[in-house]
Amino acid sequence: MDRSKQEKTALGYSDEPSDPTTEQGAASSLRARKLLSESQEQEVKELRSNSFQTRRTTVADLEEVLFEPIPVLDHGFVRVIDYMGDDAAITQAARVSYGRGTKKLREDSGLIRYLLRHRHTTPFEMCEIKFHVKLPLFVARQWIRHRTANVNEYSARYSVLDREFYIPAPEHLAAQSASNRQGRGEVLEGEEAAEVLELLKRGAARAYGEYEQMLNQDEEGNPRDAERQGLARELARISLPVNIYTQWYWKVDLHNLMHFLSLRADPHAQYEIRAYADVMLDVLKRWVPITYQAFEDYIAGATNLSAPALAVVKRMLAGEEVTQENSNLSAREWRELLEQLGRS
Amino acid sequence: MDRSKQEKTALGYSDEPSDPTTEQGAASSLRARKLLSESQEQEVKELRSNSFQTRRTTVADLEEVLFEPIPVLDHGFVRVIDYMGDDAAITQAARVSYGRGTKKLREDSGLIRYLLRHRHTTPFEMCEIKFHVKLPLFVARQWIRHRTANVNEYSARYSVLDREFYIPAPEHLAAQSASNRQGRGEVLEGEEAAEVLELLKRGAARAYGEYEQMLNQDEEGNPRDAERQGLARELARISLPVNIYTQWYWKVDLHNLMHFLSLRADPHAQYEIRAYADVMLDVLKRWVPITYQAFEDYIAGATNLSAPALAVVKRMLAGEEVTQENSNLSAREWRELLEQLGRS
Amino acid sequence: MDRSKQEKTALGYSDEPSDPTTEQGAASSLRARKLLSESQEQEVKELRSNSFQTRRTTVADLEEVLFEPIPVLDHGFVRVIDYMGDDAAITQAARVSYGRGTKKLREDSGLIRYLLRHRHTTPFEMCEIKFHVKLPLFVARQWIRHRTANVNEYSARYSVLDREFYIPAPEHLAAQSASNRQGRGEVLEGEEAAEVLELLKRGAARAYGEYEQMLNQDEEGNPRDAERQGLARELARISLPVNIYTQWYWKVDLHNLMHFLSLRADPHAQYEIRAYADVMLDVLKRWVPITYQAFEDYIAGATNLSAPALAVVKRMLAGEEVTQENSNLSAREWRELLEQLGRS
Amino acid sequence: MDRSKQEKTALGYSDEPSDPTTEQGAASSLRARKLLSESQEQEVKELRSNSFQTRRTTVADLEEVLFEPIPVLDHGFVRVIDYMGDDAAITQAARVSYGRGTKKLREDSGLIRYLLRHRHTTPFEMCEIKFHVKLPLFVARQWIRHRTANVNEYSARYSVLDREFYIPAPEHLAAQSASNRQGRGEVLEGEEAAEVLELLKRGAARAYGEYEQMLNQDEEGNPRDAERQGLARELARISLPVNIYTQWYWKVDLHNLMHFLSLRADPHAQYEIRAYADVMLDVLKRWVPITYQAFEDYIAGATNLSAPALAVVKRMLAGEEVTQENSNLSAREWRELLEQLGRS
Repeated sequence: MDRSKQEKTALGYSDEPSDPTTEQGAASSLRARKLLSESQEQEVKELRSNSFQTRRTTVADLEEVLFEPIPVLDHGFVRVIDYMGDDAAITQAARVSYGRGTKKLREDSGLIRYLLRHRHTTPFEMCEIKFHVKLPLFVARQWIRHRTANVNEYSARYSVLDREFYIPAPEHLAAQSASNRQGRGEVLEGEEAAEVLELLKRGAARAYGEYEQMLNQDEEGNPRDAERQGLARELARISLPVNIYTQWYWKVDLHNLMHFLSLRADPHAQYEIRAYADVMLDVLKRWVPITYQAFEDYIAGATNLSAPALAVVKRMLAGEEVTQENSNLSAREWRELLEQLGRS
Repeated sequence: MDRSKQEKTALGYSDEPSDPTTEQGAASSLRARKLLSESQEQEVKELRSNSFQTRRTTVADLEEVLFEPIPVLDHGFVRVIDYMGDDAAITQAARVSYGRGTKKLREDSGLIRYLLRHRHTTPFEMCEIKFHVKLPLFVARQWIRHRTANVNEYSARYSVLDREFYIPAPEHLAAQSASNRQGRGEVLEGEEAAEVLELLKRGAARAYGEYEQMLNQDEEGNPRDAERQGLARELARISLPVNIYTQWYWKVDLHNLMHFLSLRADPHAQYEIRAYADVMLDVLKRWVPITYQAFEDYIAGATNLSAPALAVVKRMLAGEEVTQENSNLSAREWRELLEQLGRS
Repeated sequence: MDRSKQEKTALGYSDEPSDPTTEQGAASSLRARKLLSESQEQEVKELRSNSFQTRRTTVADLEEVLFEPIPVLDHGFVRVIDYMGDDAAITQAARVSYGRGTKKLREDSGLIRYLLRHRHTTPFEMCEIKFHVKLPLFVARQWIRHRTANVNEYSARYSVLDREFYIPAPEHLAAQSASNRQGRGEVLEGEEAAEVLELLKRGAARAYGEYEQMLNQDEEGNPRDAERQGLARELARISLPVNIYTQWYWKVDLHNLMHFLSLRADPHAQYEIRAYADVMLDVLKRWVPITYQAFEDYIAGATNLSAPALAVVKRMLAGEEVTQENSNLSAREWRELLEQLGRS
Repeated sequence: MDRSKQEKTALGYSDEPSDPTTEQGAASSLRARKLLSESQEQEVKELRSNSFQTRRTTVADLEEVLFEPIPVLDHGFVRVIDYMGDDAAITQAARVSYGRGTKKLREDSGLIRYLLRHRHTTPFEMCEIKFHVKLPLFVARQWIRHRTANVNEYSARYSVLDREFYIPAPEHLAAQSASNRQGRGEVLEGEEAAEVLELLKRGAARAYGEYEQMLNQDEEGNPRDAERQGLARELARISLPVNIYTQWYWKVDLHNLMHFLSLRADPHAQYEIRAYADVMLDVLKRWVPITYQAFEDYIAGATNLSAPALAVVKRMLAGEEVTQENSNLSAREWRELLEQLGRS
């Protein structure tokens, strides 16, 4: 069976094999590297050449990047596939109105900011966006924890996975953090870094080779040995590491997208999922610029003061000298408060 | 404060008052009756005159009715406000593909039917639709039980409700069913019917009058008595009956819409919510005609045979004479089976 | 058909009629008033006399009030029916541990506070609680907007509703707020208050009377007129006002309960739903006292500073004189910030 | 840092290492093999020795297995950690009743069967159960797609994963199915089977060795090389294959548990997740025996006849000779119908 035949029958698709073991991949610029196969590029081009008439709310800035793969990490991407609504659709729903209304842009903006500031979240659920994402399995496992979304993932029971693995760029190869059990410390250097990179690359190449061997399949997807049956796809894939790439369609409403971004575009999130969230922040800005600014002001850039921390701030503002000892805060909370106030 | 001023400041809107106590309203044809005020009609007209260029999937049959209020019951409507996706978007997600694919329509149709028949529901979540609905409160209370949807309802804390009440048409004034504790029996006739209609109409008119009295507000929205403050809107509304109309924006994905329709376009559903579901079935047909047909074949028109019922059918097909006594079914289940097989 | 017979066949139950039109109801102390019928009291007593052996986590303070109706408003109540987990179950799940662990209480408390402070919400989903609540329809309509919960409501299609209506106590009869479109102002007094109370009481009594008339049913549930059929229950109820009481079983996890309480035990919530939330806060304190304290510190008593507001606070702490004009905040946001800092 | 020290500080736990590369593990009987470390066994023993007094609904048959690990696959298990409700709690919620009621068991059973047969699902949401599950990553990825549940997973960012990998027993090493793109065919035999097993075992051992090497950690959890920092845990784990075991707390209501079981205890599910579902069916039987039987009759053992298939069955029952050609069914649907009717 050759690849083109497989493309016709698969729930999924087949990409050209790429080699994760060469320096070249990591070294080449993100923009320059090959994200899609020829036939995929052709499909995207056709989609982008379409132009339909619609009565629906349309956002020119977002249409501009529609269907285009935006590169993330070494082989991943985010593509916007479809969307529903814009900034005005939020105020329209909040007002349960019959039309776009005669409100001025300034009033709309004021209402959107008011709604977000006061956690009136339901109007933001009235906008929806659909992405096609290519991402490593371990990122997918963090991502899928966000339950209020719709997802269709490429099936490794049904189709053969591509030979694409995430190998961190050297500047992301970090040591375990000593202070934060869940974070990264300094960047690894010298021999240790080289050895780790080598282990990751070799491990990926070897695992994929054994995957094909168990499937009894060669690089073109043909049987290697006519005497053998090949292990079932759903079993052969169990030996693949979690840095292999998968892909899915992911659809979410604007409120839940912002919740996702507030957690995943955050310094506490693992770098690799943050890379996706950062790209999606740009998409958010194109799609709903007023909401994006409100998100930055009231969610991403905002800070939550606990009741005891608020009490401390009030005392400080009243001119009192507050120390951890007389603050009623634990050492940890005191440290966190100083950080919040930019005093650490 | 006059109505037009109120329109400018309300989270919500104000409609022209209509009189639920006259025969005229119920008697006039649905199409003819006035669903929108002049200014609302103008807003709808403006929306419908828009034409934007988009790269997105577009469905001409659905665009045709976009924003148009489709009448339901005596004062209600369903308006399609926005949508995302079409039949092809389902197969595209199922295949996690890069483009619309080169699949023929027949293959797409086969896949859609296969997916629905085998309860692979996630690809159907990839389409989304948004409605503006005007509906009586008691219908809204049944409707809201479907939790996997987004909703923004007109706020009676924030704005004054319209003088619009659902009064059943004479042919829907049914007696309590004797056999089904949760259903309707024969249509009421004669004096009893007349009295019930009278009670409903008078009750609605009186409740609305007292609502305005407590608000200290006349029909134009002006204070009745300058000496009085008027009861808070959030309290005055507690005396309004559940046949008053409310309205909301309701957004749902295709899978959950079909689930809603399978339960609410069903004979066991109360007539009034079924009236909405029936109208939405027509929308479904315009939007995703292949999925609509699969829905009719595999969900709406399908029947579920329990394990013991299936055993009975097999025995019947083998030529055995099966009776309730030797069927291993309770009397009730036996009756249900005969109904399923069209033998009752 | 008499009441006792109805009790045997209903999905639901039947309460003794009470009279919302007499002063007595509202005047009597909450504790003293009759919440349950004799037979219901007997059922509760039996449940409370049970004592089973279990290996499950058990919370003595919560067991104390199990099944007991806690009064809310004039005829409502909250009853705790069942629960799963305690404070330690949260840390156990966070650690994915095999037992209760050897951690000291202080460590558990520290971890719970850390988790809540940093919005690690999933461990709080590991505790669950089930309530039986009696509440006015208009409160139920606000409550049901919280979608992440399970609910079984008494069906007015299946059974006849009780003659119980919420009539606000005089001190809660407030005028419309002039400054807040969604809030209450001063308490109504004198003739206006008397008239409103009278309208509410008379309206409730009349609506219930007409409900029985349409059902063709007398106070004992027997047919009034043997010649008549009676309107279907699902139709007769459409004329009842939204201050009639309904009831439901409501089950929710601890995380979503706290979300509910943070929105509904808040001054912006309507008083009537707040009355329920306040009672449930006491339940929370009995059930998971450590989490309760963390909730008070990090959610209920906490405040969110937007990015621009945080910038202002930093400048203030640095000794700068900040005014609205040089604050980069809108007049409204400036006012909100002063309120947050207790300076308004 | 030694293991015991690690146990004290981890969000998670540490197990004794076991060797997936020896025949012994797979060969030994499930019951005999070591599922827990000494200290874990001790913790479970302590939990099981507890006995508390409670007023809550208690199920003796389920208490019997509480906290006990039930073995699944080669290193996995299912433990019931907590539960809420029983069969009677379903009818109690359906009736919104005040007590356990005076209904006879037979009436309760009839109501439960009626509710499930007619898809009245909300009363089943009133029972809840919490599991602790140890499972391979690729099973976890299928499992997590069920969104209406609560989950806390062991964090490989925070803690080091155990050296435990799923290696299929020889009788489960199946070839790819020729007819079903998503299924297994015959069992592999001879040299091919031996080679696949060898590849899986060696691959697992090697991947874990390299994981420790990148972490710069030896088998006791101590640093291997004092000069090195060790790669961050969140990065080192990306080279581990998806047959490594993880574990989580998983909590779900009875309705959603049955939905999970209907899809995962089904022949179309992958064997490895079905192994978990089968064990959980036994738990279901202990917990709610009446519901379990209804589940078998109306869901697991039931079959769905499409509208056209139902038409065929009716014609057959009327004595007509129906063939695919005159059936109005596609070849595939015809084949499916014959299977449903046990005639293939």
